[in-house]
Amino acid sequence: MRIDLNSDLGESYGPWSMGDDRAMLDIVTSANIACGGHASDPETMFTTLRLAAERGVVIGAHPGYADREGFGRRVIPMSPAEAGRMVAAQIGALAGVAAVAGAVIRYVKPHGALSNVSMDDRAMADAIVAAVKAQPGDLALLAISGTELEEAGRAAGLTVFSEIFADRGYLPNGRLVPRSQPGAMIHDAGAAAERLLRFLETGKMPVLGGDPIPLRAQSVCVHGDSRGAVAMAREIRSALTARNVEIASFL
Amino acid sequence: MRIDLNSDLGESYGPWSMGDDRAMLDIVTSANIACGGHASDPETMFTTLRLAAERGVVIGAHPGYADREGFGRRVIPMSPAEAGRMVAAQIGALAGVAAVAGAVIRYVKPHGALSNVSMDDRAMADAIVAAVKAQPGDLALLAISGTELEEAGRAAGLTVFSEIFADRGYLPNGRLVPRSQPGAMIHDAGAAAERLLRFLETGKMPVLGGDPIPLRAQSVCVHGDSRGAVAMAREIRSALTARNVEIASFL
Amino acid sequence: MRIDLNSDLGESYGPWSMGDDRAMLDIVTSANIACGGHASDPETMFTTLRLAAERGVVIGAHPGYADREGFGRRVIPMSPAEAGRMVAAQIGALAGVAAVAGAVIRYVKPHGALSNVSMDDRAMADAIVAAVKAQPGDLALLAISGTELEEAGRAAGLTVFSEIFADRGYLPNGRLVPRSQPGAMIHDAGAAAERLLRFLETGKMPVLGGDPIPLRAQSVCVHGDSRGAVAMAREIRSALTARNVEIASFL
Amino acid sequence: MRIDLNSDLGESYGPWSMGDDRAMLDIVTSANIACGGHASDPETMFTTLRLAAERGVVIGAHPGYADREGFGRRVIPMSPAEAGRMVAAQIGALAGVAAVAGAVIRYVKPHGALSNVSMDDRAMADAIVAAVKAQPGDLALLAISGTELEEAGRAAGLTVFSEIFADRGYLPNGRLVPRSQPGAMIHDAGAAAERLLRFLETGKMPVLGGDPIPLRAQSVCVHGDSRGAVAMAREIRSALTARNVEIASFL
Repeated sequence: MRIDLNSDLGESYGPWSMGDDRAMLDIVTSANIACGGHASDPETMFTTLRLAAERGVVIGAHPGYADREGFGRRVIPMSPAEAGRMVAAQIGALAGVAAVAGAVIRYVKPHGALSNVSMDDRAMADAIVAAVKAQPGDLALLAISGTELEEAGRAAGLTVFSEIFADRGYLPNGRLVPRSQPGAMIHDAGAAAERLLRFLETGKMPVLGGDPIPLRAQSVCVHGDSRGAVAMAREIRSALTARNVEIASFL
Repeated sequence: MRIDLNSDLGESYGPWSMGDDRAMLDIVTSANIACGGHASDPETMFTTLRLAAERGVVIGAHPGYADREGFGRRVIPMSPAEAGRMVAAQIGALAGVAAVAGAVIRYVKPHGALSNVSMDDRAMADAIVAAVKAQPGDLALLAISGTELEEAGRAAGLTVFSEIFADRGYLPNGRLVPRSQPGAMIHDAGAAAERLLRFLETGKMPVLGGDPIPLRAQSVCVHGDSRGAVAMAREIRSALTARNVEIASFL
Repeated sequence: MRIDLNSDLGESYGPWSMGDDRAMLDIVTSANIACGGHASDPETMFTTLRLAAERGVVIGAHPGYADREGFGRRVIPMSPAEAGRMVAAQIGALAGVAAVAGAVIRYVKPHGALSNVSMDDRAMADAIVAAVKAQPGDLALLAISGTELEEAGRAAGLTVFSEIFADRGYLPNGRLVPRSQPGAMIHDAGAAAERLLRFLETGKMPVLGGDPIPLRAQSVCVHGDSRGAVAMAREIRSALTARNVEIASFL
Repeated sequence: MRIDLNSDLGESYGPWSMGDDRAMLDIVTSANIACGGHASDPETMFTTLRLAAERGVVIGAHPGYADREGFGRRVIPMSPAEAGRMVAAQIGALAGVAAVAGAVIRYVKPHGALSNVSMDDRAMADAIVAAVKAQPGDLALLAISGTELEEAGRAAGLTVFSEIFADRGYLPNGRLVPRSQPGAMIHDAGAAAERLLRFLETGKMPVLGGDPIPLRAQSVCVHGDSRGAVAMAREIRSALTARNVEIASFL
């Protein structure tokens, strides 16, 4: 049994810091690093890339709507073609800094509202995939399991890895329980780890109101934006390794 | 006799346009394209890269201080290391969009105040050069003739090309006549072309208050930010070709 | 017969200029001046305020979504309360610069997508109105005739003035013909002036596919974003004054 | 014996928070609130203004260079006139939000590099003072004791209050010990309070390498940007009140 742990990192900006990247980089095996769109700047990119590279954590670009005030969580209206160019510019910016940091970008995972839009909107998913595919370096795609983005990536011949969330409940159709409903969030690290173990052992994920469903996933997304989140991520990792799950990158 | 003509292009932003890029792309053989720092955005980069690629104009990245309100003409205080990372992020952003535009970046030329600073400040020049050298694609450097940037580029083993200005007067020490002094600007296209021809024939540039001085240059910078500037650039090109100067990229 | 002419002005930004504000300020009697949200900066605000004040043109604040890249034409998702605070900050910024420019803000007119949203969304309209009402100086509201914003302004006790468009066709329900349909735009200055005269004489506006409808309007919006638009605005003014319509501010 | 305590607050931005404003608002009697230049946005302004108004803390505008990435700590080259317009726009933005928050701005204190520049550059100081004076509401000025800004404010007839720093050492000429020198920072709350008490009792401030010097001050600047800073501010307040110093606003 083997799984990757990924987290969104490098989301500080100028004088403002977010999350405890150093702590998280000792927990995860893949780092989704912000690209100056929803967060970050050249200094933050450089520092985060360096820290990840030093620890051997695999690096992904984490592009989002270029809307710092909204942290990429608002849908900024734009055509798929415009979104593709925005994503291309952001991956490129991170790659440019990676070149001076001695780091290498291996995959791409969209952020926030851009990720949400690409779950259901195939034209947006295709545009993001095309932007990824056009970049040098044979970048892989990390997509939420069961989404249009995942399909679009496979259809275009990208190497696609799928992720599930450690701290979110699932519905029988494979989608996440909406945050407004009970069962959306799993706050207990033990319960979260137990669910992941069940999934790793059986290939099936427990869901709310139904039998466990088959799900494809090579990575688990954990969060690091609060002290509680970092602690939970650490506990999940410990619980998994205690049960002989190998924590290793998908790449 | 052969020379390159280069111009700063792609300096529109969002709803605001600057210069007549289409006209200039029929005049120049090298396009210094803004990278989203002092000007531009992913859409502007894409459009400009496409136009340049379609016309076979050689493409350079044109990074500047990330200060749109000041158009990169103000020195934003930062360390050489910070400047290097900023330049790396900007070259990367343009390269990312170039990948989806089917265009290739071949060289880098700093913009405005960043260019000015790198003329005399060797640490800044070295940092910019290191950022260029770290990028993939064996990027060349286009530097103003006689500057620290030019020296830094050669010292680091970059392919360096040097530029002179069509519309600026020179001093006996090889530097430009300051804009505040008489003789700084050459407003007549015929006079400008005549000076360039003299230089191409003899390798020596006429200067204010002295004998012509030897100067090394593979490119002439022309401007396109006003209707008059475009007309002057067109006239200079015509005058040079009429005298059998081949207008061709240095790459 | 008397009517006000208003136009969106002060929409330059940093090194980028938009429209011919000086020409338009000789044509209009009310200037909707951008506030640093969708366009402008302190220098542009100052220059525009000064030019308007010197000519005795009445000044309005023209707030929009704080999205320069989209020029305020994209809906940035936010709650009505957030929109109200954004509008308050923008009116305040313009008022702050007006204080040093010796100018006075008399009214507010929302821009672009913010205006569109407030046409139909009463909660957004109410929030904008509340932000206007809270400001010092007894600011009036300039709203598109027949919209929720107009209603919200009257309900809150603001002095409300209504505007119609010189260059847009109207539907029998009082709304504009969508830009995608024939008859949406009126390109001929003579035809535009003729329609306005008909309206001023009868209080009824010609519409597409129906009898003229009664409309309330104290101002006509004219555009200045292209040379053609400025010429059209000038011709409309001339045509109106030639027929003894007094062109004067509503305030 | 009576003194004001002031602190820089409202310096969060979008998703990024800075400092513990709620804790500091229970300690200080004057709040210098950022205006969307070096930090903040309409939501942050609103929240901070509300919190301050609810606690009866006197509110000042805290304008800085409009450079979020540099947090207003870098000198952005601009003329005094441009600086004045930037300051006017920022004070206005905060005033606009204050109007919807039911709060009132009473004074202005420049931030970071803008404050540093105005200490020695009289033209910059005069421009800032003129921008303050032009605003409605009879705004006072809070200036560092012994600076050109303080002089400029008095010369222009503003109500000027002067501040000293709780945690910085002073030189015999009344200026701060540069951060690069020993004795620049006072890390012990008890020592800081003792120094303040000495000053309050005698009107003279202990300095490095000399006899105490007379200093004029109605306010003490305390910091809240780290947990340690908040604790130190709280201890200083306790130590002062324990010695019967009244902590009250200068207004």
